[in-house]
Amino acid sequence: VKLYNADDPAPNPRRVRIFLKEKGLEIPFVPVSLAAREHKRPEFLARNSLGQVPVLELDDGSTLTESVSICRYLEELQPEPALFGVAAAERARIDMWLRRVEMRVMQPLGMVWVHAHPFTAAYLESQGHRQFKDFGESNLGVFAEACSWLDGEISGRPFIAGDRYSMADIVAQTTFDLGGAVGVDMPEACGHLRDWYARVSARPSAALDLSRFPVAVAREGLAKALR
Amino acid sequence: VKLYNADDPAPNPRRVRIFLKEKGLEIPFVPVSLAAREHKRPEFLARNSLGQVPVLELDDGSTLTESVSICRYLEELQPEPALFGVAAAERARIDMWLRRVEMRVMQPLGMVWVHAHPFTAAYLESQGHRQFKDFGESNLGVFAEACSWLDGEISGRPFIAGDRYSMADIVAQTTFDLGGAVGVDMPEACGHLRDWYARVSARPSAALDLSRFPVAVAREGLAKALR
Repeated sequence: VKLYNADDPAPNPRRVRIFLKEKGLEIPFVPVSLAAREHKRPEFLARNSLGQVPVLELDDGSTLTESVSICRYLEELQPEPALFGVAAAERARIDMWLRRVEMRVMQPLGMVWVHAHPFTAAYLESQGHRQFKDFGESNLGVFAEACSWLDGEISGRPFIAGDRYSMADIVAQTTFDLGGAVGVDMPEACGHLRDWYARVSARPSAALDLSRFPVAVAREGLAKALR
Repeated sequence: VKLYNADDPAPNPRRVRIFLKEKGLEIPFVPVSLAAREHKRPEFLARNSLGQVPVLELDDGSTLTESVSICRYLEELQPEPALFGVAAAERARIDMWLRRVEMRVMQPLGMVWVHAHPFTAAYLESQGHRQFKDFGESNLGVFAEACSWLDGEISGRPFIAGDRYSMADIVAQTTFDLGGAVGVDMPEACGHLRDWYARVSARPSAALDLSRFPVAVAREGLAKALR
């Protein structure tokens, strides 16, 4: 197998990078430069018609996309340490939690990023699309509510889906990494969630290179836009 | 195990119903009336804090939510016929396709339904929320584009993820069932998608009871709202 991925702080490329480090897996890596728009070139679109990283190329030449599906496949190749669970009920619970985080927490954050953040406005325009700023800003409240809900749910357990670190944690931590980088923080009152985030962020796999992402500018940009 | 579910045409309850029929599985069923708002009562919220059906109660009393995670669990209890795939690569591909359909096709359709459809306006208001109609309407184009993309992708194969009917088909067909019921149809030009939809809708598992859903009113309502 061969992994096409970007060395980028965006959640999907980062999910697979954290997963590989947690598994101790090293697979051939082909860097894709998002800045140079390599993911929109014909030869890349032949691998993923959606023009997104990561993409896993299998030995038969076929390709697999979707960060969670790629990790699920790699877990089958190397089951230990199990990040999608061992017994059937645990596997289903981890799947449930990663979906809940994606649908409930990541989705409104993504809507803030796409529709309210000044960083994405110019890009959308260049693609013939536009922001819906009132909708985007309304998702700040949806995101905060989702954080409070998740904060209550994880009270009393160390990780998102239970006693063990899992793919659900990876999906959640990369969500909050993005939030922090662009100026959408979890509410102060979410103590369980903040403790959990500190815990997973301290893992060696979580080292986050933001050197090519202007965090201060992005945070200040959103703060200004909302003023 | 025991399934709390609604006899409702909404995609998530319906996904599990179709899955059970395809598997030939019968499990104890507890009906939840969405009309009577039983899914928002304290005793139900104790089973799913998100107040949504379906919910699977395991024999130890713990509960599992998320239609796809519930089906994934039931597949482990009874592997045949495999709807999540058999070999690792096939399983990953089915997972990839059900995710692509959810993120690319269901999401914009859901945004039209929530933010542009007159049917949901009153409900949102009763919950202290509001529609963002221009955003909602913009998702009609996003949905149509996603249909065209999917139409090209499935050209030359009978089912969404390959040669076999799978969970990816269930996720996709329940999406288009909702679209049809509320007045958001796949574009005429999507011939492969239309053939596929006719094929999966002809399966005995797909029998769709819309007797309690006012399809004609919902379709006319959206048409009027967009006029």
